[in-house]
Amino acid sequence: MTTVGILGGGQLARMLALAAVPLGVRVLVLDQSGDACAGEVATLLEADYTDEAALAEFADLVDVATFDFENVPARSADWLASRVPVFPNPGALATAQDRLSEKTLFRELGLDTAAFAAVDDRAGLDAAVAAVGLPAILKTRRLGYDGKGQARLRAPGDVEAAWQALGSGRVPLILEAFVPFRRELSVIAVRGRDGEVRTWPLTRNWHEDGILSLSLAPVAADADLQAQATDFARKVAQRLDYVGVFALELFEHEGRLLGNEMAPRVHNSGHWTIEGAVTSQFENHLRAVLGLPLGDTGLREPSAMLNFIGALPDRRAALTVPGLHWHDYGKRERPGRKVGHATVSAPDLDRLLARLDQAAGLLGHPGWRPSALGLD
Amino acid sequence: MTTVGILGGGQLARMLALAAVPLGVRVLVLDQSGDACAGEVATLLEADYTDEAALAEFADLVDVATFDFENVPARSADWLASRVPVFPNPGALATAQDRLSEKTLFRELGLDTAAFAAVDDRAGLDAAVAAVGLPAILKTRRLGYDGKGQARLRAPGDVEAAWQALGSGRVPLILEAFVPFRRELSVIAVRGRDGEVRTWPLTRNWHEDGILSLSLAPVAADADLQAQATDFARKVAQRLDYVGVFALELFEHEGRLLGNEMAPRVHNSGHWTIEGAVTSQFENHLRAVLGLPLGDTGLREPSAMLNFIGALPDRRAALTVPGLHWHDYGKRERPGRKVGHATVSAPDLDRLLARLDQAAGLLGHPGWRPSALGLD
Repeated sequence: MTTVGILGGGQLARMLALAAVPLGVRVLVLDQSGDACAGEVATLLEADYTDEAALAEFADLVDVATFDFENVPARSADWLASRVPVFPNPGALATAQDRLSEKTLFRELGLDTAAFAAVDDRAGLDAAVAAVGLPAILKTRRLGYDGKGQARLRAPGDVEAAWQALGSGRVPLILEAFVPFRRELSVIAVRGRDGEVRTWPLTRNWHEDGILSLSLAPVAADADLQAQATDFARKVAQRLDYVGVFALELFEHEGRLLGNEMAPRVHNSGHWTIEGAVTSQFENHLRAVLGLPLGDTGLREPSAMLNFIGALPDRRAALTVPGLHWHDYGKRERPGRKVGHATVSAPDLDRLLARLDQAAGLLGHPGWRPSALGLD
Repeated sequence: MTTVGILGGGQLARMLALAAVPLGVRVLVLDQSGDACAGEVATLLEADYTDEAALAEFADLVDVATFDFENVPARSADWLASRVPVFPNPGALATAQDRLSEKTLFRELGLDTAAFAAVDDRAGLDAAVAAVGLPAILKTRRLGYDGKGQARLRAPGDVEAAWQALGSGRVPLILEAFVPFRRELSVIAVRGRDGEVRTWPLTRNWHEDGILSLSLAPVAADADLQAQATDFARKVAQRLDYVGVFALELFEHEGRLLGNEMAPRVHNSGHWTIEGAVTSQFENHLRAVLGLPLGDTGLREPSAMLNFIGALPDRRAALTVPGLHWHDYGKRERPGRKVGHATVSAPDLDRLLARLDQAAGLLGHPGWRPSALGLD
């Protein structure tokens, strides 16, 4: 039986493992924590990601290796790739780990981005502010996620505080112009080992406190936006010789798409594909890294994904919503932690919005009401 | 965390366990074999079903118990039920274990059946043949499945051979008139702990060598057949105070439904509901036994289930069929053994039949061609 190894054992690995079972594929997870939630449905090897003895054991046991998070140490990825096929390849991973290199790539491929400038020291920050303008966002180039490692600069007086908040230059930074975007979108794409690329329908995303709160597909938009997104995803995948699923986070601004960042893995804004698409991002990631034919990425039904942050709401109440499916990650509740999600699907968008309204009420989260989302 | 205990650890328990994970429900399986295939996704307790020490340990660890096969020893079910809630209840299980009692129940509830007669001895068989007529089928009252424990009687000369083939009266038998049915159908139903009953759309079934080969839903039929099936399922469930999923296997004969048998568990002819219905039979069985609200049993897309008997066909070829999903049970291949299935779904019946034709060709199983099934 084929075994896929996953570095990282969080909810993404857990959902990959659930998709692997029906395919007849075994999953081995390597995680630094012995209670990583993927361990409930996959074999778990507990070790530090840089522990070469553990990586060697892992490499011996798997046919192919992949990741459930992007901040895999580059040396670990390289080390693994010298022993076993690793998808995405370490070079693609490295590009996506660095905000500067991914934005540079986007521009090279013709995908516009907000103005940005690298910041390596305090003088460089002043120069970047002069070049990019304000408002802007100062970010760490690496290791940021869910709004962490970011500081907003509204006026010149904010510069020094942002500099100190992000470590006074101890790590490389990037300054990005703030884009007064109309909508936040993402496209999830998959590329097979044979080079075939497929994309799921564009997804619209809403964040709360920097963390994804709700995703909805399909996006009411002209066909051109979908075509643009698909085209960019294909170019990115080809340039990086990428294999597997990845996400492009996009801003829609004045009818155009701007590239924000790339996630080199299955992505939170693609969780709706479990119920809403013919083939989920999890199944297609496995099909891709195993060199199997890719599944249809078409929409089955309009769907929304509600993220459960910090705590799970009332399951019993939630299950009374028609077309709602519950996803408990088996994680301990903790403020700011993603502990589960629900997908709500419906035969058409009107019914989906009605069910969303019902769910928002039952689960006590008014931010999910279509009126709060600007969807009414 | 809630734990559901399942007696029996085959593919039904495995698919129940896969549905349990996202619900945040733990599964403990008790099976006589240490390599029962549900053990790959659930905790497995290896013991004989009549081992009271093992049953006591099992009962201590679970919040509610259920079954993945119907031939659970009645004493084991009773013993468990004295310690923990058991669904379906042992009385319902006992009724469904015996072809005579289930057919008697069907008649009492107004669901017609083929003529039948109990056979307890050799003279009783002659009397039954006189009463029921030929052709007929002699069956063991208990423990039969997949065509096992059956002998066909075409002419008076077959009586003695059938008598000997089924053990010369060592176990109770039943003689059933052969019904020249038009179609074999089934309805899958679920009843919650609060008494709510829901049914999935009628399914049409085709058998090969007594084993289910293909199921397809929805059935092209007038609304009345669906209403009849739903009505009977509701009556059966209420009479038995049944909780959980069950299947009624039916014959369609001259525009009417005849009851053939009842399976007190999730059922092979309901596997298509994983992809084809809003809520699968596996998720709804768990919701029912846990007292959670039942999910929508409506059709999402026309779907067909192809059973893999004895061996798995070529996975790579199968995955090129649009809308096909693969279900490997992780079982060793063996003649006559169910080792997996595929579901093929499509937005409409025409496309489903085209995909079925494609799958039949790719997987080398001409019996699945719509022309062979009489669907062209």
